[in-house]
Amino acid sequence: MSTVTLAQHLQQKIDLKTKPLGALGRLEALALQIGLLQNCSNPELSHPSILTFAADHGIAASGVSAYPAEVTVQMVQNFLQGGAAINVFCRQHGIELHVVDAGVNFEFSPDTPLIDAKAGMGTRNFLHEEAMTAEQLKFCFERSAALVEQQAKKGCNVIGFGEMGIGNTSSASLLMSCLTGLPLTDCVGKGAGVSDEQLVKKLHILERAKVSHPAPAEVSQALRCFGGFEIAQICGGMLKAQQRQMIILVDGFIASVAFLCARSINPEITMNAVFCHQSDELGHKNLLRHLDASPLLHLSMRVGEGTGCAIAYPIIESAVRFLNEMASFESAGVSQKTSE
Amino acid sequence: MSTVTLAQHLQQKIDLKTKPLGALGRLEALALQIGLLQNCSNPELSHPSILTFAADHGIAASGVSAYPAEVTVQMVQNFLQGGAAINVFCRQHGIELHVVDAGVNFEFSPDTPLIDAKAGMGTRNFLHEEAMTAEQLKFCFERSAALVEQQAKKGCNVIGFGEMGIGNTSSASLLMSCLTGLPLTDCVGKGAGVSDEQLVKKLHILERAKVSHPAPAEVSQALRCFGGFEIAQICGGMLKAQQRQMIILVDGFIASVAFLCARSINPEITMNAVFCHQSDELGHKNLLRHLDASPLLHLSMRVGEGTGCAIAYPIIESAVRFLNEMASFESAGVSQKTSE
Repeated sequence: MSTVTLAQHLQQKIDLKTKPLGALGRLEALALQIGLLQNCSNPELSHPSILTFAADHGIAASGVSAYPAEVTVQMVQNFLQGGAAINVFCRQHGIELHVVDAGVNFEFSPDTPLIDAKAGMGTRNFLHEEAMTAEQLKFCFERSAALVEQQAKKGCNVIGFGEMGIGNTSSASLLMSCLTGLPLTDCVGKGAGVSDEQLVKKLHILERAKVSHPAPAEVSQALRCFGGFEIAQICGGMLKAQQRQMIILVDGFIASVAFLCARSINPEITMNAVFCHQSDELGHKNLLRHLDASPLLHLSMRVGEGTGCAIAYPIIESAVRFLNEMASFESAGVSQKTSE
Repeated sequence: MSTVTLAQHLQQKIDLKTKPLGALGRLEALALQIGLLQNCSNPELSHPSILTFAADHGIAASGVSAYPAEVTVQMVQNFLQGGAAINVFCRQHGIELHVVDAGVNFEFSPDTPLIDAKAGMGTRNFLHEEAMTAEQLKFCFERSAALVEQQAKKGCNVIGFGEMGIGNTSSASLLMSCLTGLPLTDCVGKGAGVSDEQLVKKLHILERAKVSHPAPAEVSQALRCFGGFEIAQICGGMLKAQQRQMIILVDGFIASVAFLCARSINPEITMNAVFCHQSDELGHKNLLRHLDASPLLHLSMRVGEGTGCAIAYPIIESAVRFLNEMASFESAGVSQKTSE
């Protein structure tokens, strides 16, 4: 069926369900989007997965974060023990969670149930040098594409991307500023919770970093300059997910910046994206406006890890279910509108 | 434990979870609310249920709705066959759905799996007379209280209230206007989807109805004047749910008006309420502002039936789960903030 015909067919199917016209609101738009993506009028969600990428950041040594850098590895261990927020919400919704070492500054034992995609022991401090080499960036893109391909082969058609990395809102803010042209003040927020005073310091450090690099408006150059490994891997993973026609669940600020990078490489990825949650991180609101995206949820969360994807997942499932399971006016014998 | 001590204890438990302080946003507020309601620091959700009350409205004969009155009974049959939106979403989340005949204009066969709480064959037309008698109102309150008591005895501690009834946004708008003092123009919307022209007619009819009754600011008088049976039953059911310390899931416009009625009888009910979804019905936004309520979801739905409760339920479950399942900084060995 051609896309236009399928879109019409899906819209008709939606409109004939036993509810006032348009009355399921955003669920209807989701059902249409997912049907078009899967090229059928009975779409299904299969093997929902979240990949959570963790990495360290050289910039953390310059005091941009409220938490010490060792929290990255500690949180990875918490993920592996099932005690973090993302573990709880994935268990709740039957979402498979994979934790990826994109570049944590720690030698994990080989028997750790962690996916090894280590591009280094953390990025270098972009205040002094480029965060990563061209080889590291290439590795990040290839490795995460392979991970997503693996998920697709297992039958996964809906995938979320989460992150953990002390210092990563700093990388994300710089990437956002470079790629959108917005001033850094519109892109920088409190991250995991710095004080007002620390925020001024963070902004000052990032301003310095921005002027020390030659305005990289090109996405791979920007990623190389400012990192991080997890952002590059999420970007690469999203691009592969687009190729495999998967639904891409976009989480909070960091993941949305990775999406911004992916979109500047392949604008068609917008069709695959479901923006899950608008985080309380200041830059996220501005970024979503730039992307013309309107997330499903506004719950004032700012955890990252993929938590927004997990919390939004049942809503996406509801969209698919109403399309497949609700009766039509005809099948239920319900009268339609008297007039218009 | 005293309420203050329990609140402190719950807040400390929330704050020591492995996440930035406050970073689970509204989930944290929910966890606190539910802990206080259940008077413990390990709250649980048990036997989640939705009662969907259906009834007919005499005013439907005056042409206030986009759908013919027989849609009420047809939709009840659709509920019983499992084909409506509320069926789909309750199945998805393991919520027990009970359909209640609060006063549908149809004689159902006695073996229909429908809860019989029929107060009449629909209300009378409030354009000409009071919608129901004092006896009918008393019956509505008592009958729905008994239904909720039954759920509580089965172990249900979280309950949603839905409705179906062609013409019921008209009753709800009048109740809202009487009880809040807001002009009808702030309380009237397109319901299930009248045209702009029909909306003007609807507003005109409701203005006439309002002046024809002696400004009933007292809630039982207002319910008697304007109905409907399902609104009265939801109000009575909510009051019982408050008595039994249940979490009350408040759905869209009609259910929120029933909540407004219940709150004017017992203001303490606010502690029990979780506002689930801001509907696209015009009056709902104004009513939520009046109630100082901020719903979990904004998905532009306007179905009623309890659908907002069902869609929001997993978020409430997430709140309880993070409180019970997440590791603490201490148990996970994660460092806390470096400074503040």
